[in-house]
Amino acid sequence: MNAEMLKEIYTKARQWVEEAGHYIRTNIDNPLTVDTKSNPNDLVTTMDQDTESFFVSKIKETYPDHSIIGEEGYGDKLTTLEGTVWIIDPIDGTMNFVHQKRNFAISVGVYHNGIGVIGLIYDVMADVLYHAKRNEGAYKNDKKLNPLNKEVVLEEAIVGMNHFWLCPNRLVEEETMQQFVRKVRGTRTYGSAALEFAFLSEGIIDGYLTMSLSPWDIAAGVVIAGEVGGTATNIDGQPLNMLEKNSVLVCNSNLQKDIIKFIKKGRK
Amino acid sequence: MNAEMLKEIYTKARQWVEEAGHYIRTNIDNPLTVDTKSNPNDLVTTMDQDTESFFVSKIKETYPDHSIIGEEGYGDKLTTLEGTVWIIDPIDGTMNFVHQKRNFAISVGVYHNGIGVIGLIYDVMADVLYHAKRNEGAYKNDKKLNPLNKEVVLEEAIVGMNHFWLCPNRLVEEETMQQFVRKVRGTRTYGSAALEFAFLSEGIIDGYLTMSLSPWDIAAGVVIAGEVGGTATNIDGQPLNMLEKNSVLVCNSNLQKDIIKFIKKGRK
Repeated sequence: MNAEMLKEIYTKARQWVEEAGHYIRTNIDNPLTVDTKSNPNDLVTTMDQDTESFFVSKIKETYPDHSIIGEEGYGDKLTTLEGTVWIIDPIDGTMNFVHQKRNFAISVGVYHNGIGVIGLIYDVMADVLYHAKRNEGAYKNDKKLNPLNKEVVLEEAIVGMNHFWLCPNRLVEEETMQQFVRKVRGTRTYGSAALEFAFLSEGIIDGYLTMSLSPWDIAAGVVIAGEVGGTATNIDGQPLNMLEKNSVLVCNSNLQKDIIKFIKKGRK
Repeated sequence: MNAEMLKEIYTKARQWVEEAGHYIRTNIDNPLTVDTKSNPNDLVTTMDQDTESFFVSKIKETYPDHSIIGEEGYGDKLTTLEGTVWIIDPIDGTMNFVHQKRNFAISVGVYHNGIGVIGLIYDVMADVLYHAKRNEGAYKNDKKLNPLNKEVVLEEAIVGMNHFWLCPNRLVEEETMQQFVRKVRGTRTYGSAALEFAFLSEGIIDGYLTMSLSPWDIAAGVVIAGEVGGTATNIDGQPLNMLEKNSVLVCNSNLQKDIIKFIKKGRK
């Protein structure tokens, strides 16, 4: 993809993200229809569906040869990342959206032949857009984000993770994760994967660890984090597959080896 | 304390909180001197100390007969809550202050003969003030907060808690807390007790559970939460002692019995 095309797609994507965000913000206090998906805590609202539908119709109209992977299923069923693929979570952090009416994000990643070229994470209620084009740096609104701190050590790191890591689980012995929690300086749980990628990218957390995320949760974040010296892999350090669910470790690159080594001790 | 006096003290307290907050916000990007206190992750900065010092001098000058309990030790050593006592955390969430430059708060509670009469929690970087006078309702900036949702059930509750609850600890078997994490809809960790009290008060979390907090972490929050139907006790449901450390459960009153019963199963 040439620079001109990249810029054009970025401009459109940004415009649609801001338009969708404005709509959500304006309607945040309207009554919501909330359903559940895979389990009682996996929430979906008509706002998730309508927002994805908005993106799909805009993309199909403007770029009929592009493909779409979306959380709510209005996109395509893909078996390859060839060509240009939009990977969209219309509302990442739906539980926060429903219960808090803030702390959720629109997440849009654009991949070209498997490589992430555009990432947009819009913290809708705070009106803060994290955005990046491949090899052109990452931004928070108009401010270019600094490269992540090279001096960071695990003992002074703040790590985003949920509490299920410390319950019996299929990936890592909980005793190892208990040691991990004691090793790092602090842990946080914000309830939106996209925002945790964004927070990692601005250096307010140093890592984010999660057991199973879908491509739409991470596609934009991977691009943004990559521009500031963040690395995203699965918890064994293997590349992420944008057509499947993955365990995810995204962190300051300087911490990656240490975190993977730590987790490996208890890896099932 | 009569209504006029209450109003006067509230007005002064609010003015000083806003003044201190403005100072912190203006100087947030200046270099910091960070020290540690009880352990390597218990941080303190000169900003914590200077801010407490500011409050202490203002209070002593204006109300020489009032007493002060402050985190950084510039206040008085009290053995009783008789009279009017200011309970102050100049920067609650110092780790967030240092690492994130946001998500911290100034917390000021005023107690009269042991009863909380004023609570102010100022989310400095967001410029959001949570405030309450006893029996006059609680506010977020100029907006009166609604009473907490009476329909809430544990299965749909979001609970603030840190990850140490799921590590071996002196209070509750971690297996019980693992079951608790699975029982509720979601868990969050924000890293500032005062802000978690504030979030509880605006209903964006339904409970907050913590192993050991000092009076300055909770004094303001207890007043604010109390005005909207929140109840704060220790984890056994006993009254909090504002002269000592306490375990703390603050929650929507409608959840209190259920949470205490749940925890009791694993109480050591």
